[in-house]
Amino acid sequence: MSSKVIGRPYTILNVAMTADGKTDTFARQGAMISSNLDMERVDRFRASSDAILVGGLTLLGDDPRLLVKSAALRRERLERGMDENPIKVAVVTRADIRPDSRFLTYGPAKIMVFTTTQTSLSQIDALRERGIWVHITEASRVNLLSVMEALHQAGVKQLLVEGGGTLNEALLRLDLVDEINVYIAPLIFGGANAPTFASGPGLEREAAKPLKLTNVQQYDDGGIVLRYVVFKTANIEA
Amino acid sequence: MSSKVIGRPYTILNVAMTADGKTDTFARQGAMISSNLDMERVDRFRASSDAILVGGLTLLGDDPRLLVKSAALRRERLERGMDENPIKVAVVTRADIRPDSRFLTYGPAKIMVFTTTQTSLSQIDALRERGIWVHITEASRVNLLSVMEALHQAGVKQLLVEGGGTLNEALLRLDLVDEINVYIAPLIFGGANAPTFASGPGLEREAAKPLKLTNVQQYDDGGIVLRYVVFKTANIEA
Repeated sequence: MSSKVIGRPYTILNVAMTADGKTDTFARQGAMISSNLDMERVDRFRASSDAILVGGLTLLGDDPRLLVKSAALRRERLERGMDENPIKVAVVTRADIRPDSRFLTYGPAKIMVFTTTQTSLSQIDALRERGIWVHITEASRVNLLSVMEALHQAGVKQLLVEGGGTLNEALLRLDLVDEINVYIAPLIFGGANAPTFASGPGLEREAAKPLKLTNVQQYDDGGIVLRYVVFKTANIEA
Repeated sequence: MSSKVIGRPYTILNVAMTADGKTDTFARQGAMISSNLDMERVDRFRASSDAILVGGLTLLGDDPRLLVKSAALRRERLERGMDENPIKVAVVTRADIRPDSRFLTYGPAKIMVFTTTQTSLSQIDALRERGIWVHITEASRVNLLSVMEALHQAGVKQLLVEGGGTLNEALLRLDLVDEINVYIAPLIFGGANAPTFASGPGLEREAAKPLKLTNVQQYDDGGIVLRYVVFKTANIEA
């Protein structure tokens, strides 16, 4: 099967890590890394995006709200004729999302779920009854190129990806990322098994993704934000 | 046993990583990360140091030369009355260093090896016959506080640590690091099992080491160097 991506959103990875590259401690219980200043930056990013994407581990493990926190920024969106919050998008092989999860109950926000036939029909019905747009693939894993096309067709021009590392690496591998914003907190977590923002199998040295550092922003609190654009290494077919 | 460190070198970790925090690809074959500009920076760091420390995995796996590359910088050292190269120091549980290794044969440089009784007596004799200073502990692992004291007594004022991640994490955990210099290459390697510069078991969130970002240097080649000093979190007894 060969299908070229004909259109996709401008896609931004947003990540927060320690100076030693960790997105959590070895305990993986959602250790706080971002400072208040950085959370305001992320909120502005969310407010400027049409959709926010998370992977299955982040969805089921962290159960994020994925909302714009600032009332002023939400009001601005409404004034510009946008929805109050971006569309929440999840890519999840088996969508065992709890009915009372923050992801489903916090809003108002449109929700799109990309999943596989590993999700039960009763769960799919339950999600659809809540007004959620659910796409099911027969394949063993969700095809990220199809996700991008569907988001493009849904009018998503800017997509913010908020992890986790497995999804980030898969998107980078497929050259589906345009920009990476890395907040580096002045902290060391250590840990051979602590997570990083691009996990998965990893790339060979020759296949490493080259970036271009386009902006550096230092915070008074010791944090620093590096903005990279991703060089495109190949025309993608999958 | 309780022994307070009464004196130790000013200790600098020097690391090169990708934007996603990796010090090598998943294949762990010593992928090139530093640019030429960064290697010149590291060479100047080496030239200003009295000793360079590596851990066992780096010693036996990478077999580093640990010499000052620039002839001009070596000449400057000699003119200042220093040895041409810093002392090479290895901390290695079982010192199975090959007689023809770069670590042992490239020089001129003094060499100090801290090891345990897991190293055979014949190997210890062979190392000592080469003029190498060998310290053996009866404990199962080398005590890093003792290493610091021995280096202090040997007149080492500035110590540059060149990895690996296990040694770095152990030194940070014991509050034996004063400064961290992180070169971040504009690259993504990805990989859940790719190494980072602070590995080992890792720290709990409450025990995370706080840093202070004191300098940011951007290279034309897209790399960036972050200089951190380490806040001391406790008086160390071990």
